[in-house]
Amino acid sequence: MSRKPVNIRDKLALFHDHWSPRVVAEMNDYQFKLVKLQGAFVWHDHPDTDECFLVIDGALRIELRDGTVELQAGEMYVVPKGVEHRPVAETGAHVMLIEPRGVVNTGEAGGALTAENDIWI
Amino acid sequence: MSRKPVNIRDKLALFHDHWSPRVVAEMNDYQFKLVKLQGAFVWHDHPDTDECFLVIDGALRIELRDGTVELQAGEMYVVPKGVEHRPVAETGAHVMLIEPRGVVNTGEAGGALTAENDIWI
Repeated sequence: MSRKPVNIRDKLALFHDHWSPRVVAEMNDYQFKLVKLQGAFVWHDHPDTDECFLVIDGALRIELRDGTVELQAGEMYVVPKGVEHRPVAETGAHVMLIEPRGVVNTGEAGGALTAENDIWI
Repeated sequence: MSRKPVNIRDKLALFHDHWSPRVVAEMNDYQFKLVKLQGAFVWHDHPDTDECFLVIDGALRIELRDGTVELQAGEMYVVPKGVEHRPVAETGAHVMLIEPRGVVNTGEAGGALTAENDIWI
């Protein structure tokens, strides 16, 4: 029986809104989520977990209170738990997030950009 | 202060041997490992954890006892815990593995292809 892998670009073609992560796979209690970014997000942190950003297309800047990480496609960065960060994608980016199931995109900050969680495509 | 992301292709250029995963990042108690595959691996399973394969370059076939998954670059597949599998990359592949720290590449099978664990680049 042939089984289908997850094709990242095929999944990205299925949605167009920004800052709204879609789950594409699970590994134990972790999820792989795709999200399209445009502009600046809110400052927030995740007090209980690290969070991995893997850039698929475009460019992403992760602002930290004491520094900045500039990422291009094919680059990744793990924001440690409890570290405040603000993702900024001035010209747009497609990103894979890897983090435990249940993590909310705005962390402790909340606000208008808080996305519904655990949406699969 | 500018911080450096992990550039996947830069890391892949740092080693040339096959079936020997290198750790490039950690997230909580999980690791991101890069590995170069050529030919057929051994049948094995990981009784305690799922294992994610993300193909960076080349093509990978994951043989299962009851099926097959064919992956190209930009595709991923999570092998569930306890499921026997055999990775085969006839024409070569560069793969990112994502799994808990401490997972041994040959799982329960052992043998000559068992790689030293927790080698960082």
